[in-house]
Amino acid sequence: MLKAVAQIPSTRDRILDAAFETLRRDGFARTSARAIARTGAFNQALIFYHFGGVNDVLLASLDRVSVQRMERYREVLAGATNPNDLARLTRELYLEDVECGHATVLAELFAASSSHPGLRDEMLKRMRPWVDFTEALIQRFLDGSPLAALINAHDAAGALLAMYVGVDLLMNLDGDRSRVVEMFDMADRAAVTLAPLMGGYAT
Amino acid sequence: MLKAVAQIPSTRDRILDAAFETLRRDGFARTSARAIARTGAFNQALIFYHFGGVNDVLLASLDRVSVQRMERYREVLAGATNPNDLARLTRELYLEDVECGHATVLAELFAASSSHPGLRDEMLKRMRPWVDFTEALIQRFLDGSPLAALINAHDAAGALLAMYVGVDLLMNLDGDRSRVVEMFDMADRAAVTLAPLMGGYAT
Repeated sequence: MLKAVAQIPSTRDRILDAAFETLRRDGFARTSARAIARTGAFNQALIFYHFGGVNDVLLASLDRVSVQRMERYREVLAGATNPNDLARLTRELYLEDVECGHATVLAELFAASSSHPGLRDEMLKRMRPWVDFTEALIQRFLDGSPLAALINAHDAAGALLAMYVGVDLLMNLDGDRSRVVEMFDMADRAAVTLAPLMGGYAT
Repeated sequence: MLKAVAQIPSTRDRILDAAFETLRRDGFARTSARAIARTGAFNQALIFYHFGGVNDVLLASLDRVSVQRMERYREVLAGATNPNDLARLTRELYLEDVECGHATVLAELFAASSSHPGLRDEMLKRMRPWVDFTEALIQRFLDGSPLAALINAHDAAGALLAMYVGVDLLMNLDGDRSRVVEMFDMADRAAVTLAPLMGGYAT
């Protein structure tokens, strides 16, 4: 009996699923408690009971996916030992972010946080682990490379994350993802050519 | 008599000034017709009479500044003959964008356009001249350089504009501009070192 119960998604999980799905499909402006409740076929009072409010459930639904994505990024990129790997694997990870809705939901919440101070602070808090992760990754590739004198890993991480958020926002606007793939192709070609500049990690 | 009248800003200009100022100061969510009218001390009906609606006046106020900025970018960057100049001048232009409110207003409208389909199409239309300008600029530096084989000017322009929009959005979120200056310092150092790779334009 207990086993069977454990396999049914909890109410909390059902609310998180519906919130993520609604935000992804309809965008922030159309994601009301009512819209989320309609997506999940439950009473909208449950959202307030379990999460307090709409922004809270949206952030919680982002967090659930972000934690999984961070784990995946760590796992996959731990295996990258040269710039070519890095370019190839980062492209795969980015396309997974698009596929699973993480990229869209991030773009929606970043865009919305421009007008919602409470959301803004929460989104900035959520940037930090990604800045730290990206910075450590860049630093790993810089150590022992002549590029280390040129590139500050913290600033480079900020620039890359800004690009990630900007690309997400612009892709959400026009929906043309083929151009992102082309950007990665370009990064690939650059990585192959610039690999000799990367000391310890060069192929 | 006619001369004196010409020096007084037209009603249209007063409305555009007030719209830009309100959007810059208060953000998109708080920029109602009422708020714009309060900033400019005029009757809010004038906004609808002259522009049709709030989004229309906001776009028109962006356009007025964007046209000036595009002219300035063209003029200043026409004089850039090597990557070091390019890095230094682009940094100055970006700081001017921040100073005059262009960066903030762009970030606000891009963020808002994620939730407003009508605004979205208008903002995408407004990206095009900047993509074309950036692409032509990159192409000018690539011609005759060994990097031309690696870098597609159109994709690179897309990546740079995505970074511009992302940086604006993130800066608007936490207001820490010192980090953007650090990113430009890094680009400066990279330009100095990579200059020998740039064929015709190298110092």
